[in-house]
Amino acid sequence: MSKKYFLDEEELPREWYNILPDLPEPLPPPLNPATGKPVSPEDLEPIFPKELIRQEVSQERFIPIPEEVLEVYRIWRPTPLIRATRLEKALRTPARIYYKYEGVSPPGSHKPNTAVAQAYYNAREGVARLTTETGAGQWGSALSFATMLFGLKLTVYMVRVSYQQKPYRAILMQTWGAEVVPSPSNRTKAGRAFLEKDPEHPGSLGIAISEALEDAIEHEDTKYSLGSVLNHVLLHQTIIGLEAIKQMQALDEFPDIVIGCVGGGSNFAGISYPFYYLVRSGKAPKKTRFLAVEPASCPSMTKGEYMYDFGDTARLTPLLKMYTLGHDFVPPPIHAGGLRYHGAAPTLSLLKKAGIFESVAYNQVEVFEAARLFARTEGIVPAPESAHAIKAVIDEALEAKRKGEEKVILFNLSGHGLLDLAAYREFLEGRLPAHEYPAEAIQKSIAKIKEYLLARGIQP
Amino acid sequence: MSKKYFLDEEELPREWYNILPDLPEPLPPPLNPATGKPVSPEDLEPIFPKELIRQEVSQERFIPIPEEVLEVYRIWRPTPLIRATRLEKALRTPARIYYKYEGVSPPGSHKPNTAVAQAYYNAREGVARLTTETGAGQWGSALSFATMLFGLKLTVYMVRVSYQQKPYRAILMQTWGAEVVPSPSNRTKAGRAFLEKDPEHPGSLGIAISEALEDAIEHEDTKYSLGSVLNHVLLHQTIIGLEAIKQMQALDEFPDIVIGCVGGGSNFAGISYPFYYLVRSGKAPKKTRFLAVEPASCPSMTKGEYMYDFGDTARLTPLLKMYTLGHDFVPPPIHAGGLRYHGAAPTLSLLKKAGIFESVAYNQVEVFEAARLFARTEGIVPAPESAHAIKAVIDEALEAKRKGEEKVILFNLSGHGLLDLAAYREFLEGRLPAHEYPAEAIQKSIAKIKEYLLARGIQP
Repeated sequence: MSKKYFLDEEELPREWYNILPDLPEPLPPPLNPATGKPVSPEDLEPIFPKELIRQEVSQERFIPIPEEVLEVYRIWRPTPLIRATRLEKALRTPARIYYKYEGVSPPGSHKPNTAVAQAYYNAREGVARLTTETGAGQWGSALSFATMLFGLKLTVYMVRVSYQQKPYRAILMQTWGAEVVPSPSNRTKAGRAFLEKDPEHPGSLGIAISEALEDAIEHEDTKYSLGSVLNHVLLHQTIIGLEAIKQMQALDEFPDIVIGCVGGGSNFAGISYPFYYLVRSGKAPKKTRFLAVEPASCPSMTKGEYMYDFGDTARLTPLLKMYTLGHDFVPPPIHAGGLRYHGAAPTLSLLKKAGIFESVAYNQVEVFEAARLFARTEGIVPAPESAHAIKAVIDEALEAKRKGEEKVILFNLSGHGLLDLAAYREFLEGRLPAHEYPAEAIQKSIAKIKEYLLARGIQP
Repeated sequence: MSKKYFLDEEELPREWYNILPDLPEPLPPPLNPATGKPVSPEDLEPIFPKELIRQEVSQERFIPIPEEVLEVYRIWRPTPLIRATRLEKALRTPARIYYKYEGVSPPGSHKPNTAVAQAYYNAREGVARLTTETGAGQWGSALSFATMLFGLKLTVYMVRVSYQQKPYRAILMQTWGAEVVPSPSNRTKAGRAFLEKDPEHPGSLGIAISEALEDAIEHEDTKYSLGSVLNHVLLHQTIIGLEAIKQMQALDEFPDIVIGCVGGGSNFAGISYPFYYLVRSGKAPKKTRFLAVEPASCPSMTKGEYMYDFGDTARLTPLLKMYTLGHDFVPPPIHAGGLRYHGAAPTLSLLKKAGIFESVAYNQVEVFEAARLFARTEGIVPAPESAHAIKAVIDEALEAKRKGEEKVILFNLSGHGLLDLAAYREFLEGRLPAHEYPAEAIQKSIAKIKEYLLARGIQP
């Protein structure tokens, strides 16, 4: 039966791992869309604190975790590493399946690993208030938790349709003291423009980002916070993989494959980058594979193009070189809200482009089937996002069975699904649409951003 | 800042503690209401497996935990002991506050500690199916989790109004494979009788118990399972206190006071009985106080009478000697559904009667204020039930501040509130009614059961 492995609190890693010096080639710089020139750190100062801008481009391999951040991590970290022996038995696989369980954090996911760090650095630099956007609400609730701990105010622009359909996450944020504003709102120029067109506008993540950015730029005491994609965010998440390395070493195990779901890429980078470092530096006992798992309806790494694109729908961010479906692409309303992002983190995209990382995509019906099997064997109800990783794990374990291989599989169970039970009901009642690959919409969206860039003399 | 203390998995206790041999006087036996004579173990065989009946009356002080149960406990146990330093700081108290956090279990509460044991013994004795009732759903989801792990079928009769108002818990049970039936249902005679009177009957815990019992009695392969009140249930929960003793010993601490909320009494007995044993046997370094916390709207230990009464509204159970508000009393619809029980466990009632245990009652508005302070300092959103304990902890810590005492407070945070966020919304929006002590209804209900017993020649 399933067994968990804890680390002593004293073994909590004291540094994050920064992948920038270990990439197979230099990361293409973010570009200013107006000039086509690389963005300078100063350009980012109105929206991010200096230390996070420094981490964004740092070439230091290991970055010390401030004691104040470690103190908060200790509320729920180190997280358990669990061997999924009951799932193994159900699959009759010779594979050994391990998962790192990030759902033990108070907000229920891996997101506070970076939210706490970001809140800390902002507070240290005298910022009084943060803004952010949230879709389904995992990120917004993590940042609410973190800003509360460091005495910062927080305004969360929450996609209106999610605010109405998923009230529990909004209440959670409010309980922790955050202000939650359904977006589009009349608080910003961007929001008012959309409301004028349609007073009942359902909102989108792109609009919510625009509102959060505008709010931060317009208020001097306020900065903006992002929950994925950027290097400083992924870097904070490497605490997951650094812990997992210690836990697997204590078991004398090493993964043949590391698996995680990818929206922007933060939970997968968190578990995989530290193992990548061991493999690349020759310190690993085997050649580990790295597998990113995406929804078939939003498969940026699997079906997107590696090119420059905006990080948001409203074209407010710098251009990032990444696998993208085009920032205009609106994915179908799958329940894994955290995976409905048109791009993938630039570092992750580079590793995929270099043939070092792999990706695969599944539709949400097969994903929920995997989630149900996991809940009925391991007992934990996974978040729909994390269930994507589980589907890939099951396929890898079944392949190991066919081949009679004693493969070691490690995956990141990035969150629990207790606030996603409405999605489980749809699945259990057979009402869940599969949402396969929307090829045409994606082709159109990619063509559009290419045309946009070429018209401005920027090489995609 | 808050710090948690784990136990190594090897230190997981191997025995439960049974309080029966250590009570200050013998427990008055359950009575058959028809004859007024003590119930025999055989009388209970149609509804419980033999081993649980044996544990119900056992005089062994320590009862070995089967290896199969320990294996499941290891999914989430040992649970952390956390020092609430952020709460201490907010209160500026010299008290040291520790809490045992049971919300880390997959169903999110302490309930699986007994659900797993009960499912195991039933499976071992060849039972194919269990029935139970649930109100808000904590117990039903814990038993769904446990029966799934041991391959038993489960039917949960869920109070209809809760089934409609709180769909998430029902979905959780279904995800784990249980059948959830809104009660009253047409599956039982009892249910049909209520539906005939009112096809839209909202149901009650009393009716749901009747249906679950009838279903178990009518089917030979089926037994019934209860989540609190009985000795075997409380005994399984002592794993909480036994772990806490080891964790506090490692810190060279011992509680001056142990606090827990009480509905039937299982989570409070779970944390307090092992400490009571140390105090009683002279092995404790100090004379610890034990404080049970109840809702003002359903204050059985604080305002009830110590007398014989039925365990359920439909008068199907034996008569139990306990603090009771009368089985006819219907508490107001407070959000702490798990505390809406008219009685308190017979062993706990005896300890209160003997002046060894204390009790206090609070209304739900002051309880949610305590819950919000806890969420905003410690980060965990507590279940409304557990928040009752937090309110008492805060009052004890403030008293320690007034007196300048370095008091050590230990309490049981029996569950998280992630599936109770609708209640938090009512509180945050100022729509939560306080529901004070309903004196008249309780006096009437107590008078009624007294009259009933005396008419049958049974001394209350």
